[in-house]
Amino acid sequence: MTELFQARTVAEARKTVENHIRPGNNVRRVPLLDSLGKRLGKAVPAKDDVPGFDRSTMDGFAVKAKDTFGASESLPAYLDITGEIFMGKDARGELGTGQAFRIPTGGMLPPGADAVVMIEYTESLDEDTIGVTRPVGPGENVVLRGEDVPRGHTVLQAGHIIRPQDLGMLAAVGVSEVEALNAVRVGIISTGDEVVPVEVKPGPGQVRDINSYALYGQVSACGGEPVLYGVVRDDFSELRDTLAGAVSECDLVILSGGSSVGTRDVASKVIESLGRPGILFHGISIKPGKPTVGAVVENKPVFGLPGHPVSAMVVFELLVAPLVRYGEYRKNLLEFAVRAKLTRNMRSAAGREDYIRVKLVEGERGELSAEPILGKSGLIATMVKAHGLAMIPADKEGVEAGEYVAVKLF
Amino acid sequence: MTELFQARTVAEARKTVENHIRPGNNVRRVPLLDSLGKRLGKAVPAKDDVPGFDRSTMDGFAVKAKDTFGASESLPAYLDITGEIFMGKDARGELGTGQAFRIPTGGMLPPGADAVVMIEYTESLDEDTIGVTRPVGPGENVVLRGEDVPRGHTVLQAGHIIRPQDLGMLAAVGVSEVEALNAVRVGIISTGDEVVPVEVKPGPGQVRDINSYALYGQVSACGGEPVLYGVVRDDFSELRDTLAGAVSECDLVILSGGSSVGTRDVASKVIESLGRPGILFHGISIKPGKPTVGAVVENKPVFGLPGHPVSAMVVFELLVAPLVRYGEYRKNLLEFAVRAKLTRNMRSAAGREDYIRVKLVEGERGELSAEPILGKSGLIATMVKAHGLAMIPADKEGVEAGEYVAVKLF
Repeated sequence: MTELFQARTVAEARKTVENHIRPGNNVRRVPLLDSLGKRLGKAVPAKDDVPGFDRSTMDGFAVKAKDTFGASESLPAYLDITGEIFMGKDARGELGTGQAFRIPTGGMLPPGADAVVMIEYTESLDEDTIGVTRPVGPGENVVLRGEDVPRGHTVLQAGHIIRPQDLGMLAAVGVSEVEALNAVRVGIISTGDEVVPVEVKPGPGQVRDINSYALYGQVSACGGEPVLYGVVRDDFSELRDTLAGAVSECDLVILSGGSSVGTRDVASKVIESLGRPGILFHGISIKPGKPTVGAVVENKPVFGLPGHPVSAMVVFELLVAPLVRYGEYRKNLLEFAVRAKLTRNMRSAAGREDYIRVKLVEGERGELSAEPILGKSGLIATMVKAHGLAMIPADKEGVEAGEYVAVKLF
Repeated sequence: MTELFQARTVAEARKTVENHIRPGNNVRRVPLLDSLGKRLGKAVPAKDDVPGFDRSTMDGFAVKAKDTFGASESLPAYLDITGEIFMGKDARGELGTGQAFRIPTGGMLPPGADAVVMIEYTESLDEDTIGVTRPVGPGENVVLRGEDVPRGHTVLQAGHIIRPQDLGMLAAVGVSEVEALNAVRVGIISTGDEVVPVEVKPGPGQVRDINSYALYGQVSACGGEPVLYGVVRDDFSELRDTLAGAVSECDLVILSGGSSVGTRDVASKVIESLGRPGILFHGISIKPGKPTVGAVVENKPVFGLPGHPVSAMVVFELLVAPLVRYGEYRKNLLEFAVRAKLTRNMRSAAGREDYIRVKLVEGERGELSAEPILGKSGLIATMVKAHGLAMIPADKEGVEAGEYVAVKLF
């Protein structure tokens, strides 16, 4: 196979892959508590109003607001205490004009009441009478029926990733089992005759497998289900057997390793041998991460990531992570949401996106600076020192010290 | 018990709690792949150099750099090819002056070599001779032995939370089992006569338990181990039994609910009955979240969070999350790292920290705006709409539209 580098932008690479995949959307019912971090398979509507009744937000007295108009400390509005509300109970009786019911925070307003006077703005005249010293408007200190969620409202959309507050919302609308999409199963294969598993003491010329573990972590952090296929020699039939197995067992497969031309050739030939359309691009115009291979086999994405750990992790974040997290390349405005001032000039080639490892440092006034961590992309220690990646877009030839960069935390 | 509100700052509340707890530091050996997100119990030193040998970063020829000095396209330096390096193998033989060994990316430099010439800067004269058309300096295109991690270097500190790149690093230094701190076990108790579990259809005056589920999610998201104790009535002995059990079984306990004075009183009496020092403060000077109770029983923190879901979640983030994540109140510069322009004026009382739910919106040039989500703190829907919390510090009386605020994403 010839070395065919068609350096594409990240956006083009994504589009090409997306044109050839059909994401599986298998929905599974999981208990509410197990749904954190999973994607919703279906939109969730509210079957009832939340709350199901007008609810006091204060300790005090349920009243008709109009009975308090004009009340003041010098001229309180006098009301008869004709009832009391107990937590979690229906109101007994209706509130009439000139009357007040004792009510605790969270209590249900009695029929006839439309506001709550805080206890602080009342004075007790005798056991059966209060003076209201400050007027309330209708709805004041009350959460109205359906004010949190009205019946029929879609509380969460299909595809939404469930956060802690979403668990609360699902509980509020009575969803004890969630229809969640299955986690994306990601096969991870390391290649290279020099790579040994973590348990093995490397002999001369050998190094331990770093990428399988870092990528396992990245897949897990995206909510995916990583499956390790271990280290495979640079041998066509051995790699073909392993990759074919991974493609049939997983939704997406990443190979890593093989920065040498020989190794890359073996990997490319194996991918091409497995099915259509096969390899879609060799190389993307980013640094680090240029020698990336993108392929699709049987509608499943297969990525050949560079062997250098930093490059593999960066390309994972750009091309693999969105597919694992969302099943698609969705724009995520929170991804590069941190802005920090770069502490030194960094050059970049026009037409190439650069991703710089940065350490964030907080200044006296809370402002963030991003210190580039320099070092070869083969050094995992540079990723350990870094808080995130700063991006230099393709249309810039560099960033000056003091300019702001967008940083993705990791 | 009297209503004793000593409104403290968040910093004071943290300090008070911290003075009374002894964090448990039980270390457990876990397989490397299961250690993601856990805290390291001990610092990890590198037992060997990584890599263990000088390693080529390019496909090309291993050379003595001085043999290439002055080389150019018009006057190449001619070298004899006297060997070849294979991946994962020891070099056979030593490189002499005027010699070159073929070497692939990742290959081990032979003794005598100190640099690699990229294949692109060589011309092949015959099978045994190359011409080098560009000089290399010593160390060029080489990762030196120990350049990633030198032997004896501490690669990760005790207490560090393990990220994907850290898994890679631990693999690199041969750590297949990690000494990790046990996850913090957090007991979660909801209180309130009006609260029913998610499976139950609320009757008149009843609402479903939102807080247990949202807090369960928050504990999980912090790497903690949540234990749900369900919904307990506002009854002294019932609550005392449940809380005593939770304190003995967990490292930290959160009660939530009880925004009414009556309920708060029961919870406070129960906490005081369990042991010394008991309640440390009633109330903190934040909004939302003021009616928070902080206590320590038998060296274990016990928090009485407000009943309103938004308030409970905000207080969790400020007072509970750091203890679950780090076992202490550690400053985390990445926590409020996002800066966004507030889209409208927001007032705040001096001396009080305000936490505003915000939705982030990206402008045309990538700048972020923060739109406040207004609404009562009893409405979980406002948390679902929000991307994060913006902070107004205690020394400010508000933020004007267009001013930057620090946002914590959730």
